Amino acid sequence: MVSRERNVAVGGRARDRGNLRSGRTARSKDLILQAALATMTEVGVRKMTIEAVAATAGVAKTTIYRWWRSKGLLVLDAFDHGFAVLESAKSPDTGSLKGDLSELMRQVIESRGSVAERLGPQIIAEAQSDQELAAAIYSRIIAPYRILHQSIFEAAAARGEISRSFDTELLFDALYGAYFHRLLLHHGKIDTAFFESLVDLLATGATGLHVVSEPRRTNRR
Amino acid sequence: MVSRERNVAVGGRARDRGNLRSGRTARSKDLILQAALATMTEVGVRKMTIEAVAATAGVAKTTIYRWWRSKGLLVLDAFDHGFAVLESAKSPDTGSLKGDLSELMRQVIESRGSVAERLGPQIIAEAQSDQELAAAIYSRIIAPYRILHQSIFEAAAARGEISRSFDTELLFDALYGAYFHRLLLHHGKIDTAFFESLVDLLATGATGLHVVSEPRRTNRR
Repeated sequence: MVSRERNVAVGGRARDRGNLRSGRTARSKDLILQAALATMTEVGVRKMTIEAVAATAGVAKTTIYRWWRSKGLLVLDAFDHGFAVLESAKSPDTGSLKGDLSELMRQVIESRGSVAERLGPQIIAEAQSDQELAAAIYSRIIAPYRILHQSIFEAAAARGEISRSFDTELLFDALYGAYFHRLLLHHGKIDTAFFESLVDLLATGATGLHVVSEPRRTNRR
Repeated sequence: MVSRERNVAVGGRARDRGNLRSGRTARSKDLILQAALATMTEVGVRKMTIEAVAATAGVAKTTIYRWWRSKGLLVLDAFDHGFAVLESAKSPDTGSLKGDLSELMRQVIESRGSVAERLGPQIIAEAQSDQELAAAIYSRIIAPYRILHQSIFEAAAARGEISRSFDTELLFDALYGAYFHRLLLHHGKIDTAFFESLVDLLATGATGLHVVSEPRRTNRR
Protein backbone atom coordinates (compact mmCIF):
# COMPACT_ATOMS: atom_id res chain seq x y z
CA MET A 1 0.00 0.00 0.00
CA VAL A 2 2.52 2.51 1.20
CA SER A 3 5.14 1.57 -1.35
CA ARG A 4 2.86 1.57 -4.35
CA GLU A 5 1.79 5.13 -3.76
CA ARG A 6 5.31 6.19 -3.00
CA ASN A 7 6.67 4.62 -6.18
CA VAL A 8 4.09 6.19 -8.38
CA ALA A 9 4.42 9.56 -6.72
CA VAL A 10 8.08 10.15 -7.57
CA GLY A 11 8.18 12.49 -10.56
CA GLY A 12 10.29 14.99 -12.52
CA ARG A 13 11.49 18.27 -11.06
CA ALA A 14 10.03 20.67 -13.56
CA ARG A 15 6.32 21.07 -13.00
CA ASP A 16 5.38 21.38 -16.67
CA ARG A 17 7.23 18.28 -17.72
CA GLY A 18 6.20 16.55 -14.51
CA ASN A 19 3.22 14.54 -15.69
CA LEU A 20 4.85 13.02 -18.71
CA ARG A 21 7.99 12.29 -16.80
CA SER A 22 6.31 10.86 -13.75
CA GLY A 23 4.22 8.66 -16.03
CA ARG A 24 7.37 7.26 -17.60
CA THR A 25 9.02 6.90 -14.21
CA ALA A 26 6.03 5.07 -12.82
CA ARG A 27 5.94 2.68 -15.78
CA SER A 28 9.66 2.07 -15.47
CA LYS A 29 9.41 1.40 -11.75
CA ASP A 30 6.47 -0.87 -12.33
CA LEU A 31 8.47 -2.89 -14.84
CA ILE A 32 11.36 -3.21 -12.41
CA LEU A 33 9.11 -4.30 -9.56
CA GLN A 34 7.42 -6.88 -11.77
CA ALA A 35 10.80 -8.13 -12.97
CA ALA A 36 12.06 -8.37 -9.38
CA LEU A 37 8.99 -10.32 -8.28
CA ALA A 38 9.26 -12.68 -11.27
CA THR A 39 12.98 -13.20 -10.64
CA MET A 40 12.69 -13.89 -6.93
CA THR A 41 9.76 -16.20 -7.50
CA GLU A 42 11.81 -18.13 -10.04
CA VAL A 43 15.26 -18.35 -8.45
CA GLY A 44 14.51 -17.41 -4.84
CA VAL A 45 15.23 -14.19 -2.96
CA ARG A 46 18.78 -15.15 -2.05
CA LYS A 47 19.87 -15.90 -5.61
CA MET A 48 18.08 -12.94 -7.12
CA THR A 49 20.56 -10.40 -8.45
CA ILE A 50 20.11 -6.79 -9.50
CA GLU A 51 21.76 -7.79 -12.80
CA ALA A 52 19.04 -10.36 -13.52
CA VAL A 53 16.27 -7.93 -12.60
CA ALA A 54 17.80 -5.21 -14.81
CA ALA A 55 18.05 -7.63 -17.72
CA THR A 56 14.43 -8.79 -17.31
CA ALA A 57 13.11 -5.25 -16.95
CA GLY A 58 15.29 -3.99 -19.84
CA VAL A 59 16.86 -1.21 -17.79
CA ALA A 60 20.38 -0.40 -16.63
CA LYS A 61 21.52 -1.54 -13.19
CA THR A 62 22.17 2.09 -12.31
CA THR A 63 18.49 2.87 -12.92
CA ILE A 64 17.54 0.32 -10.29
CA TYR A 65 20.13 1.59 -7.82
CA ARG A 66 18.91 5.15 -8.33
CA TRP A 67 15.53 4.19 -6.84
CA TRP A 68 16.44 1.34 -4.50
CA ARG A 69 19.61 1.63 -2.54
CA SER A 70 19.75 -2.09 -1.71
CA LYS A 71 18.55 -5.42 -3.01
CA GLY A 72 16.64 -5.91 0.25
CA LEU A 73 14.52 -2.80 -0.22
CA LEU A 74 13.79 -3.72 -3.83
CA VAL A 75 12.71 -7.19 -2.68
CA LEU A 76 10.34 -5.73 -0.11
CA ASP A 77 8.89 -3.19 -2.55
CA ALA A 78 8.35 -5.90 -5.17
CA PHE A 79 6.64 -8.13 -2.61
CA ASP A 80 4.43 -5.29 -1.42
CA HIS A 81 3.69 -4.20 -4.99
CA GLY A 82 2.76 -7.73 -6.01
CA PHE A 83 0.65 -8.80 -3.06
CA ALA A 84 -0.57 -5.56 -1.48
CA VAL A 85 -0.89 -7.40 1.82
CA LEU A 86 -2.35 -4.44 3.67
CA GLU A 87 -4.79 -3.37 0.97
CA SER A 88 -6.60 -6.69 1.07
CA ALA A 89 -6.61 -7.01 4.88
CA LYS A 90 -9.94 -6.46 6.59
CA SER A 91 -10.37 -6.08 10.32
CA PRO A 92 -12.88 -8.64 11.56
CA ASP A 93 -15.72 -7.81 13.96
CA THR A 94 -17.33 -11.09 15.00
CA GLY A 95 -18.36 -10.05 18.50
CA SER A 96 -15.62 -11.85 20.43
CA LEU A 97 -11.84 -11.69 20.69
CA LYS A 98 -11.58 -15.38 19.91
CA GLY A 99 -13.82 -15.02 16.86
CA ASP A 100 -11.86 -12.04 15.57
CA LEU A 101 -8.48 -13.75 15.99
CA SER A 102 -9.87 -16.87 14.30
CA GLU A 103 -10.97 -14.73 11.39
CA LEU A 104 -7.44 -13.23 11.07
CA MET A 105 -6.02 -16.74 11.03
CA ARG A 106 -8.59 -17.82 8.43
CA GLN A 107 -7.09 -15.13 6.18
CA VAL A 108 -3.65 -16.64 6.81
CA ILE A 109 -4.93 -20.12 5.96
CA GLU A 110 -6.25 -18.77 2.67
CA SER A 111 -2.71 -17.72 1.75
CA ARG A 112 -1.28 -21.17 2.43
CA GLY A 113 0.70 -22.52 -0.51
CA SER A 114 0.72 -19.13 -2.24
CA VAL A 115 3.77 -17.46 -3.75
CA ALA A 116 3.47 -14.78 -1.04
CA GLU A 117 3.72 -17.40 1.70
CA ARG A 118 6.68 -19.02 -0.01
CA LEU A 119 8.51 -15.69 -0.37
CA GLY A 120 7.79 -14.46 3.17
CA PRO A 121 10.34 -16.71 4.94
CA GLN A 122 12.91 -15.97 2.22
CA ILE A 123 12.55 -12.24 2.79
CA ILE A 124 12.88 -12.72 6.55
CA ALA A 125 16.01 -14.79 5.81
CA GLU A 126 17.40 -12.00 3.63
CA ALA A 127 16.80 -9.59 6.51
CA GLN A 128 19.22 -11.56 8.70
CA SER A 129 22.10 -10.08 6.75
CA ASP A 130 20.37 -6.74 6.02
CA GLN A 131 19.30 -4.80 9.11
CA GLU A 132 17.69 -2.06 7.04
CA LEU A 133 15.42 -4.66 5.44
CA ALA A 134 14.50 -6.08 8.86
CA ALA A 135 13.50 -2.61 10.04
CA ALA A 136 11.54 -1.98 6.82
CA ILE A 137 9.62 -5.27 7.12
CA TYR A 138 8.44 -4.19 10.53
CA SER A 139 7.73 -0.53 9.78
CA ARG A 140 6.12 -1.07 6.36
CA ILE A 141 4.27 -4.38 6.73
CA ILE A 142 3.95 -5.56 10.30
CA ALA A 143 3.35 -2.29 12.15
CA PRO A 144 0.65 -0.98 9.76
CA TYR A 145 -1.00 -4.44 9.82
CA ARG A 146 -1.10 -4.31 13.61
CA ILE A 147 -2.40 -0.77 13.68
CA LEU A 148 -5.13 -1.78 11.23
CA HIS A 149 -6.26 -4.53 13.57
CA GLN A 150 -6.16 -2.54 16.81
CA SER A 151 -9.95 -2.27 16.50
CA ILE A 152 -10.15 -5.95 17.49
CA PHE A 153 -8.63 -5.17 20.85
CA GLU A 154 -10.53 -1.93 21.31
CA ALA A 155 -13.77 -3.85 20.78
CA ALA A 156 -12.64 -6.63 23.14
CA ALA A 157 -11.75 -4.06 25.82
CA ALA A 158 -15.09 -2.31 25.30
CA ARG A 159 -16.86 -5.66 25.82
CA GLY A 160 -14.82 -6.19 28.98
CA GLU A 161 -13.06 -9.26 27.59
CA ILE A 162 -9.56 -7.87 28.05
CA SER A 163 -7.92 -5.05 29.95
CA ARG A 164 -7.51 -1.70 28.21
CA SER A 165 -3.81 -1.96 29.01
CA PHE A 166 -3.50 -5.38 27.38
CA ASP A 167 -0.21 -5.73 25.47
CA THR A 168 -1.38 -6.30 21.91
CA GLU A 169 2.17 -6.43 20.51
CA LEU A 170 2.80 -9.40 22.75
CA LEU A 171 -0.28 -11.22 21.52
CA PHE A 172 0.57 -10.54 17.87
CA ASP A 173 4.12 -11.80 18.46
CA ALA A 174 2.86 -15.03 20.01
CA LEU A 175 0.20 -15.51 17.32
CA TYR A 176 2.28 -14.80 14.23
CA GLY A 177 5.47 -15.96 15.92
CA ALA A 178 4.03 -19.46 16.39
CA TYR A 179 2.94 -19.51 12.74
CA PHE A 180 6.30 -18.31 11.43
CA HIS A 181 8.12 -20.70 13.75
CA ARG A 182 6.43 -23.60 11.97
CA LEU A 183 6.72 -21.97 8.57
CA LEU A 184 10.47 -21.30 8.88
CA LEU A 185 11.40 -24.65 10.36
CA HIS A 186 8.84 -26.86 8.57
CA HIS A 187 7.83 -28.63 11.76
CA GLY A 188 4.27 -29.32 12.78
CA LYS A 189 1.18 -28.87 10.68
CA ILE A 190 -0.08 -25.42 9.77
CA ASP A 191 -3.77 -26.11 9.37
CA THR A 192 -7.14 -25.06 10.72
CA ALA A 193 -6.73 -27.23 13.83
CA PHE A 194 -3.38 -25.57 14.63
CA PHE A 195 -4.75 -22.07 14.28
CA GLU A 196 -7.89 -22.92 16.28
CA SER A 197 -5.83 -24.29 19.17
CA LEU A 198 -3.45 -21.34 18.99
CA VAL A 199 -6.26 -18.79 19.04
CA ASP A 200 -7.95 -20.71 21.86
CA LEU A 201 -4.75 -20.63 23.94
CA LEU A 202 -4.07 -16.94 23.37
CA ALA A 203 -7.65 -15.67 23.67
CA THR A 204 -8.08 -17.71 26.87
CA GLY A 205 -4.82 -16.24 28.15
CA ALA A 206 -5.76 -12.67 27.25
CA THR A 207 -9.22 -12.86 28.82
CA GLY A 208 -7.91 -14.92 31.77
CA LEU A 209 -5.30 -12.27 32.57
CA HIS A 210 -8.10 -9.72 32.76
CA VAL A 211 -10.12 -11.91 35.13
CA VAL A 212 -7.06 -12.40 37.33
CA SER A 213 -6.34 -8.68 37.44
CA GLU A 214 -9.94 -7.66 38.16
CA PRO A 215 -10.11 -6.55 41.79
CA ARG A 216 -13.71 -7.71 42.36
CA ARG A 217 -12.84 -11.34 41.70
CA THR A 218 -10.75 -13.63 43.87
CA ASN A 219 -7.12 -13.54 42.90
CA ARG A 220 -6.46 -17.11 41.90
CA ARG A 221 -2.67 -16.80 41.83
CA MET B 1 25.21 -33.31 22.36
CA VAL B 2 24.11 -35.72 19.68
CA SER B 3 26.54 -34.44 17.09
CA ARG B 4 29.58 -34.39 19.31
CA GLU B 5 29.23 -38.05 20.11
CA ARG B 6 28.47 -38.88 16.53
CA ASN B 7 31.50 -37.03 15.24
CA VAL B 8 33.85 -38.68 17.67
CA ALA B 9 32.38 -42.11 17.07
CA VAL B 10 33.26 -42.37 13.37
CA GLY B 11 36.38 -44.49 13.10
CA GLY B 12 38.42 -46.76 10.81
CA ARG B 13 37.14 -50.05 9.53
CA ALA B 14 39.86 -52.34 10.77
CA ARG B 15 39.44 -52.95 14.48
CA ASP B 16 43.14 -53.02 15.30
CA ARG B 17 43.86 -49.74 13.60
CA GLY B 18 40.59 -48.32 14.79
CA ASN B 19 41.67 -46.46 17.91
CA LEU B 20 44.57 -44.63 16.34
CA ARG B 21 42.55 -43.78 13.29
CA SER B 22 39.44 -42.67 15.14
CA GLY B 23 41.61 -40.51 17.37
CA ARG B 24 43.03 -38.77 14.32
CA THR B 25 39.60 -38.53 12.75
CA ALA B 26 38.14 -37.01 15.89
CA ARG B 27 40.93 -34.45 16.10
CA SER B 28 40.53 -33.58 12.46
CA LYS B 29 36.76 -33.20 12.80
CA ASP B 30 37.23 -31.11 15.89
CA LEU B 31 39.57 -28.78 14.01
CA ILE B 32 37.08 -28.42 11.19
CA LEU B 33 34.18 -27.69 13.53
CA GLN B 34 36.24 -25.10 15.39
CA ALA B 35 37.30 -23.52 12.09
CA ALA B 36 33.69 -23.46 10.89
CA LEU B 37 32.49 -21.80 14.09
CA ALA B 38 35.29 -19.24 13.97
CA THR B 39 34.58 -18.48 10.30
CA MET B 40 30.84 -18.08 10.67
CA THR B 41 31.29 -15.96 13.77
CA GLU B 42 33.65 -13.70 11.86
CA VAL B 43 32.01 -13.36 8.43
CA GLY B 44 28.48 -14.60 9.15
CA VAL B 45 26.82 -17.88 8.21
CA ARG B 46 25.80 -16.73 4.76
CA LYS B 47 29.27 -15.67 3.69
CA MET B 48 31.02 -18.63 5.25
CA THR B 49 32.50 -20.89 2.56
CA ILE B 50 33.80 -24.44 2.76
CA GLU B 51 37.00 -23.09 1.14
CA ALA B 52 37.57 -20.68 4.03
CA VAL B 53 36.87 -23.37 6.63
CA ALA B 54 39.24 -25.80 4.88
CA ALA B 55 41.97 -23.17 4.78
CA THR B 56 41.54 -22.30 8.47
CA ALA B 57 41.45 -25.96 9.53
CA GLY B 58 44.36 -26.84 7.25
CA VAL B 59 42.50 -29.65 5.50
CA ALA B 60 41.35 -30.28 1.95
CA LYS B 61 37.81 -29.30 0.91
CA THR B 62 37.19 -32.94 0.02
CA THR B 63 37.91 -33.91 3.63
CA ILE B 64 35.12 -31.65 4.78
CA TYR B 65 32.69 -32.89 2.14
CA ARG B 66 33.47 -36.49 3.10
CA TRP B 67 31.98 -35.87 6.55
CA TRP B 68 29.44 -33.13 5.87
CA ARG B 69 27.45 -33.34 2.69
CA SER B 70 26.36 -29.70 2.84
CA LYS B 71 27.44 -26.37 4.26
CA GLY B 72 24.19 -26.25 6.24
CA LEU B 73 24.89 -29.46 8.11
CA LEU B 74 28.45 -28.33 8.89
CA VAL B 75 27.08 -25.05 10.22
CA LEU B 76 24.64 -26.85 12.49
CA ASP B 77 27.27 -29.29 13.74
CA ALA B 78 29.70 -26.46 14.45
CA PHE B 79 27.02 -24.54 16.33
CA ASP B 80 26.06 -27.61 18.33
CA HIS B 81 29.71 -28.49 18.97
CA GLY B 82 30.50 -24.98 20.14
CA PHE B 83 27.51 -24.27 22.34
CA ALA B 84 26.19 -27.70 23.33
CA VAL B 85 22.77 -26.13 23.83
CA LEU B 86 21.17 -29.31 25.07
CA GLU B 87 23.95 -30.35 27.41
CA SER B 88 23.64 -27.19 29.46
CA ALA B 89 19.82 -27.15 29.52
CA LYS B 90 18.21 -28.08 32.81
CA SER B 91 14.53 -28.75 33.26
CA PRO B 92 13.14 -26.47 35.95
CA ASP B 93 10.85 -27.69 38.75
CA THR B 94 9.60 -24.64 40.61
CA GLY B 95 6.20 -26.00 41.60
CA SER B 96 4.10 -24.14 39.01
CA LEU B 97 3.80 -24.06 35.23
CA LYS B 98 4.30 -20.32 35.24
CA GLY B 99 7.41 -20.60 37.40
CA ASP B 100 8.87 -23.33 35.23
CA LEU B 101 8.28 -21.42 31.99
CA SER B 102 9.76 -18.28 33.59
CA GLU B 103 12.84 -20.28 34.48
CA LEU B 104 13.19 -21.49 30.87
CA MET B 105 12.98 -17.89 29.71
CA ARG B 106 15.52 -16.82 32.31
CA GLN B 107 17.94 -19.22 30.62
CA VAL B 108 17.16 -17.52 27.29
CA ILE B 109 17.78 -14.08 28.81
CA GLU B 110 21.18 -15.28 30.01
CA SER B 111 22.13 -16.00 26.40
CA ARG B 112 21.17 -12.50 25.22
CA GLY B 113 23.97 -10.83 23.33
CA SER B 114 25.94 -14.07 23.05
CA VAL B 115 27.53 -15.40 19.87
CA ALA B 116 25.03 -18.27 20.00
CA GLU B 117 22.10 -15.85 19.97
CA ARG B 118 23.64 -13.91 17.11
CA LEU B 119 24.22 -17.05 15.05
CA GLY B 120 20.78 -18.58 15.71
CA PRO B 121 18.82 -16.30 13.34
CA GLN B 122 21.55 -16.64 10.71
CA ILE B 123 21.26 -20.43 10.81
CA ILE B 124 17.47 -20.20 10.53
CA ALA B 125 18.01 -17.86 7.57
CA GLU B 126 20.37 -20.37 5.95
CA ALA B 127 17.68 -23.02 6.40
CA GLN B 128 15.32 -21.05 4.15
CA SER B 129 17.34 -22.18 1.15
CA ASP B 130 18.31 -25.57 2.64
CA GLN B 131 15.39 -27.80 3.57
CA GLU B 132 17.68 -30.49 4.96
CA LEU B 133 19.12 -27.95 7.41
CA ALA B 134 15.62 -26.85 8.46
CA ALA B 135 14.71 -30.46 9.21
CA ALA B 136 17.99 -30.99 11.09
CA ILE B 137 17.47 -27.87 13.25
CA TYR B 138 14.17 -29.29 14.38
CA SER B 139 15.21 -32.92 14.80
CA ARG B 140 18.59 -32.25 16.41
CA ILE B 141 18.01 -29.12 18.51
CA ILE B 142 14.37 -28.22 18.95
CA ALA B 143 12.77 -31.66 19.31
CA PRO B 144 15.30 -32.97 21.90
CA TYR B 145 15.00 -29.68 23.79
CA ARG B 146 11.23 -30.07 23.92
CA ILE B 147 11.45 -33.72 24.94
CA LEU B 148 13.86 -32.71 27.72
CA HIS B 149 11.34 -30.23 29.07
CA GLN B 150 8.25 -32.45 28.85
CA SER B 151 8.64 -32.97 32.60
CA ILE B 152 7.39 -29.40 33.10
CA PHE B 153 4.07 -30.32 31.55
CA GLU B 154 3.88 -33.71 33.20
CA ALA B 155 4.31 -32.01 36.58
CA ALA B 156 1.74 -29.34 35.67
CA ALA B 157 -0.76 -32.02 34.63
CA ALA B 158 -0.07 -33.98 37.83
CA ARG B 159 -0.80 -30.81 39.85
CA GLY B 160 -4.04 -30.36 37.89
CA GLU B 161 -2.89 -27.08 36.34
CA ILE B 162 -3.28 -28.23 32.74
CA SER B 163 -5.01 -31.04 30.93
CA ARG B 164 -3.03 -34.24 30.25
CA SER B 165 -3.90 -33.77 26.60
CA PHE B 166 -2.54 -30.21 26.51
CA ASP B 167 -0.71 -29.48 23.25
CA THR B 168 2.83 -28.74 24.42
CA GLU B 169 4.15 -28.25 20.87
CA LEU B 170 1.69 -25.42 20.48
CA LEU B 171 2.83 -23.73 23.68
CA PHE B 172 6.50 -24.08 22.75
CA ASP B 173 5.77 -22.62 19.31
CA ALA B 174 4.01 -19.60 20.81
CA LEU B 175 6.70 -19.12 23.49
CA TYR B 176 9.80 -19.45 21.32
CA GLY B 177 7.98 -18.19 18.25
CA ALA B 178 7.29 -14.85 19.95
CA TYR B 179 10.93 -14.61 21.00
CA PHE B 180 12.28 -15.46 17.55
CA HIS B 181 9.76 -13.12 15.93
CA ARG B 182 11.37 -10.23 17.82
CA LEU B 183 14.87 -11.57 17.37
CA LEU B 184 14.54 -12.01 13.59
CA LEU B 185 12.80 -8.72 12.92
CA HIS B 186 14.48 -6.57 15.62
CA HIS B 187 11.20 -5.11 16.79
CA GLY B 188 10.17 -4.77 20.39
CA LYS B 189 12.34 -5.29 23.42
CA ILE B 190 13.51 -8.74 24.41
CA ASP B 191 13.92 -8.30 28.13
CA THR B 192 12.70 -9.67 31.43
CA ALA B 193 9.43 -7.71 31.22
CA PHE B 194 8.71 -9.17 27.76
CA PHE B 195 9.33 -12.74 28.87
CA GLU B 196 7.32 -12.28 32.08
CA SER B 197 4.31 -10.96 30.16
CA LEU B 198 4.67 -13.72 27.56
CA VAL B 199 4.85 -16.47 30.18
CA ASP B 200 1.92 -14.90 32.03
CA LEU B 201 -0.20 -14.88 28.86
CA LEU B 202 0.63 -18.46 27.90
CA ALA B 203 0.48 -20.00 31.38
CA THR B 204 -2.85 -18.25 31.98
CA GLY B 205 -4.07 -19.57 28.63
CA ALA B 206 -2.90 -23.13 29.31
CA THR B 207 -4.43 -23.31 32.78
CA GLY B 208 -7.53 -21.39 31.67
CA LEU B 209 -8.19 -23.89 28.89
CA HIS B 210 -8.13 -26.64 31.49
CA VAL B 211 -10.61 -24.82 33.71
CA VAL B 212 -12.89 -24.28 30.72
CA SER B 213 -12.75 -27.94 29.71
CA GLU B 214 -13.31 -29.26 33.24
CA PRO B 215 -16.84 -30.73 33.35
CA ARG B 216 -17.44 -29.92 37.02
CA ARG B 217 -17.10 -26.19 36.43
CA THR B 218 -19.43 -23.91 34.55
CA ASN B 219 -18.48 -23.64 30.91
CA ARG B 220 -17.75 -19.96 30.53
CA ARG B 221 -17.70 -19.93 26.75
